[in-house]
Amino acid sequence: MVLLFGNEQIMFDCGEAVQRQMILAKISLHKKLHVFITHMHGDHVLGLPGLLQTMALMDRKKPVDVYGPAGLGHFLECLQETLQFQLTFQVNVHEVAASGLVCDEQEYAVSAVPSNHAVTSFSFAFEEKPRPGRFHPEKAAALGVPKGEAWSRLQHGNAVPLSSGRVVKPEDVADPPRKGRKIVYSGDTRPFDGFSVFAENADVVIHEATFDDALVEKAEVDGHSTPSQAALEAKAANAKRLVLTHISARYSDVALILEQAQKVFPNTLVAHDFLELELPLSE
Amino acid sequence: MVLLFGNEQIMFDCGEAVQRQMILAKISLHKKLHVFITHMHGDHVLGLPGLLQTMALMDRKKPVDVYGPAGLGHFLECLQETLQFQLTFQVNVHEVAASGLVCDEQEYAVSAVPSNHAVTSFSFAFEEKPRPGRFHPEKAAALGVPKGEAWSRLQHGNAVPLSSGRVVKPEDVADPPRKGRKIVYSGDTRPFDGFSVFAENADVVIHEATFDDALVEKAEVDGHSTPSQAALEAKAANAKRLVLTHISARYSDVALILEQAQKVFPNTLVAHDFLELELPLSE
Repeated sequence: MVLLFGNEQIMFDCGEAVQRQMILAKISLHKKLHVFITHMHGDHVLGLPGLLQTMALMDRKKPVDVYGPAGLGHFLECLQETLQFQLTFQVNVHEVAASGLVCDEQEYAVSAVPSNHAVTSFSFAFEEKPRPGRFHPEKAAALGVPKGEAWSRLQHGNAVPLSSGRVVKPEDVADPPRKGRKIVYSGDTRPFDGFSVFAENADVVIHEATFDDALVEKAEVDGHSTPSQAALEAKAANAKRLVLTHISARYSDVALILEQAQKVFPNTLVAHDFLELELPLSE
Repeated sequence: MVLLFGNEQIMFDCGEAVQRQMILAKISLHKKLHVFITHMHGDHVLGLPGLLQTMALMDRKKPVDVYGPAGLGHFLECLQETLQFQLTFQVNVHEVAASGLVCDEQEYAVSAVPSNHAVTSFSFAFEEKPRPGRFHPEKAAALGVPKGEAWSRLQHGNAVPLSSGRVVKPEDVADPPRKGRKIVYSGDTRPFDGFSVFAENADVVIHEATFDDALVEKAEVDGHSTPSQAALEAKAANAKRLVLTHISARYSDVALILEQAQKVFPNTLVAHDFLELELPLSE
């Protein structure tokens, strides 16, 4: 799953042949990239070496930041040693050990919470930072703020002192800051205490639903969720939308999966390869 | 590349997501399988862990035999350790060190020859063992061989003593043994002395042609071949057919690649995903 955010890419998990899918989806292999690995199972991490090598073949220069559970660094070292590959860029490995902020960028942050799978695993939340409220030029003009740099400072949330001695604050000339968008990615997990708080008010919850409701016991044993369970998590989180993923290959038709979730949480869809969702800016 | 031979599978190299392609191609994950890895580069070996894990998920019981250069065993150990997976079947790793026979089965054998790439690499030849010639029941009857087990023994190439004291030999009642089929897989390689002898009289040579003829110097530097070079190898080997593979992603249209090879060796085609070739029994 790749989140295209401005000129940056935020990837959640990295299955085999991801570079091929990216090329088919016309997603650049040269942009700023953060990769978040939920757990060290092959179907979530085995795409990394091929992705990095393909990027090197294309002479990528920008670093790649990879986040994931303990063992991620050793995994990459092992592969680099046994496959003897050289990269043309830096890979920064950030091993995640506990709940909290794992990546803090200018316009967004990503935090983690331990989830409940067969091995150490995390769910991740991408949260866009609040964006400045709508700026009203007529208010700035009326208060005597000179056009130009002072307006720009106010638009970016900074106060501006006038030559009169008065200090004009952003709230004097702009609406309140607008809420950023929030996207939560469960990774492989059973339902767990804390997910709904972690995912609170998310615009999109991307949750696994490996097995259908009839196989709830198998899901429990294997560390997975069912559509109803995923839907209950989305509902408890007061999410706006639920996207189900990681559906077992036994379901050639996902209608049943969708139906079971929609009974609990109507605004659900089942992901498929190359599905694109656009998440409009909040007003 | 998977060779379906009777009830067995012989795979040459194992790129990412091979299990997904096999499922799409309706190739079983449960049959007897030998995998031959030409060299330890990611695009030739990174599919192995996912293939093995998918097989385990499907509760495979039959062992898998994997052949390849030194380091293959360590690679699999590394992945098994860092991804902590359990298999439901035995994996037998056979590291290939030199020229010669690497796998000898009842109906076929696979041999290796060191090729000429950027790292230690091998080409492989699959050779079907000669099959008994056509049996002539009327000759057996005329010689007084009793129908039943004695006929079967003659059909399988064994001599049969009669009660008269005469020994009937297979050549008395059957045509000469029929030549087995031969398929040679180059792996990544520059042209090299010895390939054409190794591939002599092959029914099919599967040869890499990474770059077109204009990039022959780049091919030399990177350890690859061009279409003309591959075609010259097939011609020198007196092969019946040439299949080009491992074409660089820079060629969105392979017409040029095909044309350059066909000037030298007309019976050439360029492989694509899911290409199927049938190789009829020789008469």
